[in-house]
Parts: sequence; C-alpha cells; structure tokens
Amino acid sequence: MRKVLLATGLGAMAAMAAGSAAANDELNRMSQNPAEWVMATGDYANQRYSKLKQINASNVGKLQVAWTFSTGVLRGHEGGPLIIGNVMYVHTPFPNKVYALDLANENKIIWSYEPKQDPNVIPVMCCDTVNRGLAYADGKIFLHQADDKLVALNAKNGNLEWTAVNGDPSKGQTGTSAPMVVKDKVLVGTSGGEFGVQCSMTAYNIKDGKQAWKAYSEGPDDQILFNEATTSLGKPVGKDSSLKTWEGDQWKIGGGCTWGWLAYDPSLDLVYYGSGNPSTWNPKQRPGDNKWSMTIFARNPDNGMAKWVYQMTPHDEWDYDGINEMILADIPVKGQTVKALVHFDRNGFAYTLNRENGQLLVAEKYDPKVNWATKVDMTTGRPEGVKQYSTEANGEDHNSKGICPAALGSKDQQPAAFSPKTNVFYVPTNHVCMDYEPFKVSYTAGQPYVGATLSMYPPQGDQNLGNFIAWDAGQGKILWSDPEQFSAWGGALATAGDVVFYGTLEGYLKAVDPATGKELYRFKTPSGIIGNVMTYMHGGKQYIAVLSGVGGWAGIGMAAGLTKDTDGLGAVGAYKALANYTQLGGVLTVFALPD
Amino acid sequence: MRKVLLATGLGAMAAMAAGSAAANDELNRMSQNPAEWVMATGDYANQRYSKLKQINASNVGKLQVAWTFSTGVLRGHEGGPLIIGNVMYVHTPFPNKVYALDLANENKIIWSYEPKQDPNVIPVMCCDTVNRGLAYADGKIFLHQADDKLVALNAKNGNLEWTAVNGDPSKGQTGTSAPMVVKDKVLVGTSGGEFGVQCSMTAYNIKDGKQAWKAYSEGPDDQILFNEATTSLGKPVGKDSSLKTWEGDQWKIGGGCTWGWLAYDPSLDLVYYGSGNPSTWNPKQRPGDNKWSMTIFARNPDNGMAKWVYQMTPHDEWDYDGINEMILADIPVKGQTVKALVHFDRNGFAYTLNRENGQLLVAEKYDPKVNWATKVDMTTGRPEGVKQYSTEANGEDHNSKGICPAALGSKDQQPAAFSPKTNVFYVPTNHVCMDYEPFKVSYTAGQPYVGATLSMYPPQGDQNLGNFIAWDAGQGKILWSDPEQFSAWGGALATAGDVVFYGTLEGYLKAVDPATGKELYRFKTPSGIIGNVMTYMHGGKQYIAVLSGVGGWAGIGMAAGLTKDTDGLGAVGAYKALANYTQLGGVLTVFALPD
Repeated sequence: MRKVLLATGLGAMAAMAAGSAAANDELNRMSQNPAEWVMATGDYANQRYSKLKQINASNVGKLQVAWTFSTGVLRGHEGGPLIIGNVMYVHTPFPNKVYALDLANENKIIWSYEPKQDPNVIPVMCCDTVNRGLAYADGKIFLHQADDKLVALNAKNGNLEWTAVNGDPSKGQTGTSAPMVVKDKVLVGTSGGEFGVQCSMTAYNIKDGKQAWKAYSEGPDDQILFNEATTSLGKPVGKDSSLKTWEGDQWKIGGGCTWGWLAYDPSLDLVYYGSGNPSTWNPKQRPGDNKWSMTIFARNPDNGMAKWVYQMTPHDEWDYDGINEMILADIPVKGQTVKALVHFDRNGFAYTLNRENGQLLVAEKYDPKVNWATKVDMTTGRPEGVKQYSTEANGEDHNSKGICPAALGSKDQQPAAFSPKTNVFYVPTNHVCMDYEPFKVSYTAGQPYVGATLSMYPPQGDQNLGNFIAWDAGQGKILWSDPEQFSAWGGALATAGDVVFYGTLEGYLKAVDPATGKELYRFKTPSGIIGNVMTYMHGGKQYIAVLSGVGGWAGIGMAAGLTKDTDGLGAVGAYKALANYTQLGGVLTVFALPD
Repeated sequence: MRKVLLATGLGAMAAMAAGSAAANDELNRMSQNPAEWVMATGDYANQRYSKLKQINASNVGKLQVAWTFSTGVLRGHEGGPLIIGNVMYVHTPFPNKVYALDLANENKIIWSYEPKQDPNVIPVMCCDTVNRGLAYADGKIFLHQADDKLVALNAKNGNLEWTAVNGDPSKGQTGTSAPMVVKDKVLVGTSGGEFGVQCSMTAYNIKDGKQAWKAYSEGPDDQILFNEATTSLGKPVGKDSSLKTWEGDQWKIGGGCTWGWLAYDPSLDLVYYGSGNPSTWNPKQRPGDNKWSMTIFARNPDNGMAKWVYQMTPHDEWDYDGINEMILADIPVKGQTVKALVHFDRNGFAYTLNRENGQLLVAEKYDPKVNWATKVDMTTGRPEGVKQYSTEANGEDHNSKGICPAALGSKDQQPAAFSPKTNVFYVPTNHVCMDYEPFKVSYTAGQPYVGATLSMYPPQGDQNLGNFIAWDAGQGKILWSDPEQFSAWGGALATAGDVVFYGTLEGYLKAVDPATGKELYRFKTPSGIIGNVMTYMHGGKQYIAVLSGVGGWAGIGMAAGLTKDTDGLGAVGAYKALANYTQLGGVLTVFALPD
C-alpha cells in the first residue's frame, strides 16, 4: 500500500513538473531512443544520425518500398515526419495540414488538422510555401503556420490547444521553420528577409502559449537580449553592438530572419541558430556591418540572453543567409577533441567553432569554386573579399557576373548529417554561381523589399548543379564528393548501419557508402525530394522515410507555375530542366528490407 | 534495284494506307503483343487480360515497387497509362496533362502537354474532373479534353496536330472518356447527362480530325443512325423508334450520354458501347421508355449505322446509366460456345448477349441485394420492377427509401477483367443502396438538370460498400466474392500468370487468386485507387502499373473539397470515412519482381 502511495505521489510530482524541465527531460530521453524520431532535427545536436543498423551497407541494396502516403498538397515538401510511439506525424506546405498516422494499424489516419489561413499569405512567402516540420512535447504537436501563428495541437486527437501570434503576414512575416522544444518552452523563428522584417527568435511556454521571451536579430540590446557578458570570438561585444552597425533606424527593417534549424546542448544549456540576410539585398542602401544579421547565436533558453555570437558575413552583398543548421558534435580539431559547432554556411564556408565560447577553429570552403572571398581571417573572423565579386564595390545597377556561390548558397536549408562512428559530416550541397545586380528599392510594409535581380547557373566548365560531399570539420577538408545533376536539396541521414541517405531534386532517394560515397541504392520517388530522410523502428523493423514533392527555392519555377523568365523563372533558370524529370506532388515514401 | 523500287513502292502504298484500315491493322497487331498496352481497354475485346506470366500466383507475394511518378494533379485519377514501344503515356484529370515517359531512360519525361482550357468547365463536370485515358494510332496520341475537345498529339514530340470540337461545355457537354481508334477513325463519346445534353458517339478521321459521323442516343433516325436493318432482340426496331418514346421535343435534352468504354470486334466489324441515363433524374418529367438511353449499341464503325440495340432500363427512375464496359468473349453459355458480349450494368444485372445479333442470353443480378427489380423478362428484355422502389410510382417529392443499388450502381465505370484461361469475369463492384427523391426541375442550357436528391449507404445489415467478385457469365452466377470496406472503384486486370489485380479506394493494390479470391499481395499506394491496373514488359521484365489518386463519384467529397452535407456531401456520405484512410494526389506506382 505504501508503495502504491509513493508511486502515486511521484506520478503527481511528475505531472506537476510536466510543462517545465520535465518536458525537456522526456524529449531528451525519447530522442535517445532510435526507434522514434521526436524532433525535426532527429536530436538536439542536429546530427541526423540514427543508431539503427538493421539496414546496413550489405543489405541496403535490397531496400524496397513498404508503404506510401500522399499528403494531398502539391507544392514543395521540406522537412520530414516525427515518430512518437506508434504514431507518425506528417506535415505539409501551405495550407499546413498535419496528419497523425497509426503505425500499428496500417498507417490509418487517426486525425488530420488543417488551419484556416488567409491564402494572401502565399505571395508573401519568398521561396515557395514550404514548412520544415513539427515539434513535439508534453502530449502536444507544435506547428508553425505559414501565417506566422504557432499552434499547439493535442497529439492524441488533433484538437487545437492554443494559438500564439508570432508575426503579421501583412507586414511580410511568415512561418516556414520547424519549432524546437527546449525545457518548458517552444522556440520559433520568423521568415521575411525579403520584406524588411526585423526578425526574431521567440520562446513560448508550451503549457499555454504565452510568450516567454523574444530576441531580435538587430536593434537595441534590450531587444536583441545582449548583456555585458555577451561575446564574439571571446571578446565582449559591448554596448549597442547592433545599433552601431546600422544607419539610423534601418535596423527596424533589417531582416536577419530566423527560419533555419535550431540546436540545443543540454549540458551547456545553450540553444544555437543562425540569422539571415540583412534587408535589402542592395548593400549600398544599408552601410555598416548590419549586425547581427548573418550570425550564429548561442542563447540561454530560459531567458533568451545571448552568450556568444559570431557574424560570418558582415554587410552581406549576396543574400548569403546564415540560417543553415548548427550541428553539435564532439570531434577532433587539431589533435584535441572539442565541443564543436559545425555550420555549412550559404556563403560557401564551413565553420567549426567551440560551442562553449564561440571560438572560431576552422573556416574553409566546402566547394572549391567559391570565389567571393579568398579565406576567412581567423583572428577577426571576417572574410577576405574579392573586389570583382563585391556588389557593394561595383555599385547599384551594375551586373556583377560570375559570383560563386549563387544567392541560394553552397548549401541552403537542406541539413547535413554527422556520424559519430566516422566523425564525418555528410553534406548535400549546391554548386551554382550567379550574376547579381543591386538596385535602389524603397520600403513599404508587406511589399517585397529585395533590391536586386539575379540569374543562376552552374560554375564555368561544370554541368552539375550540386554535390553530395563528405567533410572533415576538424581539418576543413572534403573527403569525397559525388556530383549531382541538380542540387542535393534534400536533408541527409547517417546511420550506424554504415549507410548515408539523401534525396535529389529529380526524386531519387540515394544510399551511399560513408567511406567512399559509392552509391549502394537508389529509388525514384514520385516527385523531386527537398525533404529530409529519417528513420525509425516499428514492430522490430527499421524503416527509412522521406517526403518527396518538388519545390523550395530551387524548384520554385515548378512549384509556383512560373512560365516566363520575366515572372522570376530567369533567376532559377538553371533548374528549368527539372521539369524533364519530375512533377509536383507531396508523397511520403517509406522503405524497409523485405521480410 | 528492282527490289529496292518495289520496297519503296510498297512503303509508299503503306504510307498512303496509313490513316485508313492500316491504322487498325497496326493497332490490332500491337494489341496482340503483351509487352505493350496500346489502348485504354488493353485490347479491342475490352478483356483487360494479359498473356504475361512472369509475375504469377507463386511469386506475386514478392512484388515490389519499381518506380513511381507523381502527375502533379490532385483530383481523381481514372484510367491508366498506354505503352507504345519504349514510351509510356500518362494522362491526368483536368487540366488533362499528358506525359510521355522514356522507359529506356529512367522514365525521364520526353515531353508533356497541357491544353489551355477554361477552368469554368470544372463545375460542369458532374462527378469529379476525371479522364479515363488516351488512344494511340498512326503516330498520334488522342486526348479527350474536359472541354469536350478531341486533340491529336504527335506521339514523338507532343506537338498538337489537330483539334476537333466535339461539344460545348457552356451547354454542359464535357469530355471524360477514353477515345478508341477503329480503322481510320477515332471514336469519342460525351458526358453531360446531368445537364440535359443530347449525347452522341462521334467518329473523326485520325488523319485530319474531320468528323466522319455522329450518332445520337435519341432523336430521329437520321440522327441516331438507325435504318430498317437495325434490330432489338432480333426484331427490327422500326421507324422513329426513339422519337416514339419521348414526349414532344424532350429527346433534344434527353441525355443518354456516352462516357463509358468502347469495344470493337474486328471480325464482325462492330463497335459496342452503352448510353447513360435519360435527363432529368426525375422520371415523372419524361414519360415513355426514353429510347435509346440506357442502351447497348452495336454500330458499324465506318458509317455509325446501328446494327442492333438493347435497352436495359427503359424509362430509368434511378440514374442507372448503361455506360459500363462491354466485354467481348467467346464463352460457353448453356452448353454452347457463343460470341458473347458481357456487360455489368449499373442497375445490378449482368447481361450476356450474342454480340452478332444482340440476342439476350443471360440477365442475372451480380449483387444479391439488388431490389428495384425481381428479374429481367428474357422475352421482352424488360426488368420486372418492384413498386416500392419505383420513384415514378412514388412520385415527385416522395423520398423512396432503401433502393438497391444506389445511383452509382452495383458497378460504375470501373472496368471488369476476363480471363480466357478460366472463362471467368473478375468484377470490381459497389454494394450501396439509396434513398431517392425526385423533384420538378426546369431546363436551362449549361445548368444542372438533375431533378432528384439522394443519399447513399451500405445495404441493411452490411458494413462493406463493395465486393470484388468472380462471375460466370454463361450461368449468371457469382463464383466467389471478396468484401471491400469501400467500393472496388479501380479497374481489374487478369493475367496468364493466374493472378487477378485490382485497386481499392483506400489505396491498396491487391492481387488475388482467380480460383478462390484469396489475397496473394497488397500494397498501399499513395492515394485511393480509382484507376485501372495494367501490365507491360520492358527489358525482359514484367511490370504492373496503376494510377492512384482518390476521387471520382465515390471520392467526390474529397476531390471537390466538400465539407457540408448541404454541399452535396450527404449524397456520398457513405464514403466520408475514406478521409481516414487516404488523401488526394495523382501518382503512378509501377511494380515488378525483385532482380
């Protein structure tokens, strides 16, 4: 009897704690269980690595499609599903449907949710109506809607539990990113860098959706949540570190959006994410370093305070958003194992930092064709630019030609994977250059505030628009590189079975040997893949799953039905040939070994 | 030298003949080659039987998905692809895209075609924006567009060769059916029975798209192409056989549409097809037998003249369209092998006729729950109705309850298959009853002219909305019956490998044993299947292919996004639960055995 009381007592305590640190402990524990896939990033470290090894290098060639699920939505499908227990949660681009599928009952739809959203949000979304996925904690599914509302749904029945208004689409604020739950809060960014949004990272209480803190990317210290302890490359940034780098009030329409992936280190209790381009794309219009756009942030998840920052591309001249994922891994760097943060930036440099203090350890090009800078000065952390490719130096209405990479970067949002077995990063990349012509643009709330035209094409002498590479982040070296006809725009997965997976824009799911990059398996899914491969185990069987559904920036021509270069198709002309390989359509394809 | 001249001479002759009888010879020959699938019906006999047997009853359980292709269109996907040489031609519902896929080059898109059509045609399509497939002959692909235009595309490059205007959507005429090429003509029907269209079958010259003949379903003899030799049940129908069965000019808005499948017997030189419901659905408004709605036609393909006709449901009171396919098979009937035509009608009776002369041999219920008639009088060919279920007898504004089958019939357009190996028909069926309430409606061109409301549900005491059955057409007997939760709304395929395939509305491709109906294989395709399973061989490998993409009449609630019973969802309420199993999305799934 006493035992029962005790157990009940503990249960009650646990219940009280739920919604505070306990949610995090539960998530952290669940993320250690390779049978599940409880956050969009796989785990807090953003490694997209699975300990599952039923599918391995010897048998992956026998992989076959186990089941499929059409999402009922046509445009670009980024992200991937979650697995919580016996339930798979699948999301879609606008209108942001969510499906709960019963893995234990022939994948029947337990519930579905479709928010009521004003379709006028569609033209405000710069680069397709994508959504990068859901978050889970405490019996709730968190969805970041296109209209920049964050909603909590009851994971059991899909009922709406609360709604938080994170931004206003009529001012260009939209939602595309996957939220992340850290302790008793759910963190979510904003899109809108092409509309002059002053972007922020915001934390809401998972219990009731009340805002806990909001940290802007630029502005006064009390808005960006910096204090005297905030450092950059080991030195305090000092007072008004952002304001000093903008002219007048420009920071108020300064961009620095936060639509990429979050990561969290429970032992350091720090969250990491990157900020995007300063607005506009015309650098002449915004003198200064435009801090803290293009920046890696390490923040305290409880109050949002920044511990350290590092700006990769001061005064951006090319739209090299810094939002790509931060991967946390303890890896050897120059003979020492370091608590590292590894980041493959749009600007073509891969950065390895000490994630405790933001010290810069390695910064090397991960595409040899990158030409806008020769290198990164390891003391100042600043890139050493090449004048020929400086759109600031060349000025407004001048078409700077042959800049590599293109605005969509040597990599965009498509996340890389890391294998602790090999200590190697597996990176889906773009291999694209551009001509870039800035022009003067005036700001009107809710209207495009771009200020540049561009066109993209493969680097001179090359046919391939992408590569899938293996990267040694300690040395800053490419280990091998598999060329791809189009960009590798789908996220990678590394597994303990010594197989690395990724998707291609033509629609192939590919499995390669982590040691050599040799292709072990390929399958043509219904549409081009811009989703992220994930894996789970159910009923003793390992499954590999990926969303296909071509679109995103690379596929915007098809996704938005652009037919004329003057409609914007010209900018992504290099990807026109995609229509010879695949068509639109969101489908989840799930693979397994034969019985 | 003489040889060369001769060969050249013959070549020129062949070229001249192309576009006349030669096209038919070529097609007939190609349709004998089981590696290809050259017409929507598989062959002229409409048997949907393949001699391929690499996939057989012993190994079908090992079937796996070989490749997939999203069509980029969401709504209901009826029909299936064609295989001409190394090219697969895939069609979609509105906007009626056509894709040519290169089987020899990783199924790359050789060309695609999308007609420019006024989207105002969509609300004029009664039962989803479906299209049932393409025809091929003489280097051309024939597409029947939603706007009732018939176009010929160059099979090599997709160039538009000619356009024939078959009807006017502003008057309710639309295109959903698969054309069929017979000799030098391409035959195509019309949809519009719910809009008071006087429907017809029309033949166009494949060479230039000029109309060769047009045969209406009702009207004066020179419009319906009847002459003194035209018979019904062996007797001449006599002069004005249609006009006599309508009041005044009602035949001019009389329906009798022709959106089903065609069949052709080259040895008898007769084409066969059925006509649909008379307009309106309110029987009180159109006294008489309403000939020749609800009729099987046997016509001369050169001039359209009717050899024989048989009206299955005189003066329809339930919307039991007679458009379902005619299957031509030489089968034993009462001890004698007969050149039979077998037809599973919407009204719940399966008819076996002598296809030379239209003699009625067998007419039996293929669903035991059919109750609107007790039997068919084998002398008069007329059904013996049950007054309780007569919506004519019960009158306007009376809700007649418990009528079986429902308006969508014991089977709709989903075609059955026949195996000459077993002499058995494999039939995907509906198992649905209805309440039906006719009301007075007035005719306005281009506006719905329905005149009845209805609701549908499974027969009392049953849970299943469908069955997949084996049918002995000589005896008129069900051999076995597999219940299906929803209708079996996808077309069947029988093969020499002793496997029968069909698709389900939840999205399963199923393979069953032809002798017992025992399930041998199932796979969940991305969306519900209303397409027809087909097979082909390429590179020494047999493939099974099927379009999924839920919709059609049964799936109209999902396809048209109906959310309220008052929007029409009530009529198909029995299918509401489909949304718990599948979502929209057109995807071709292609299966093969592992290497």
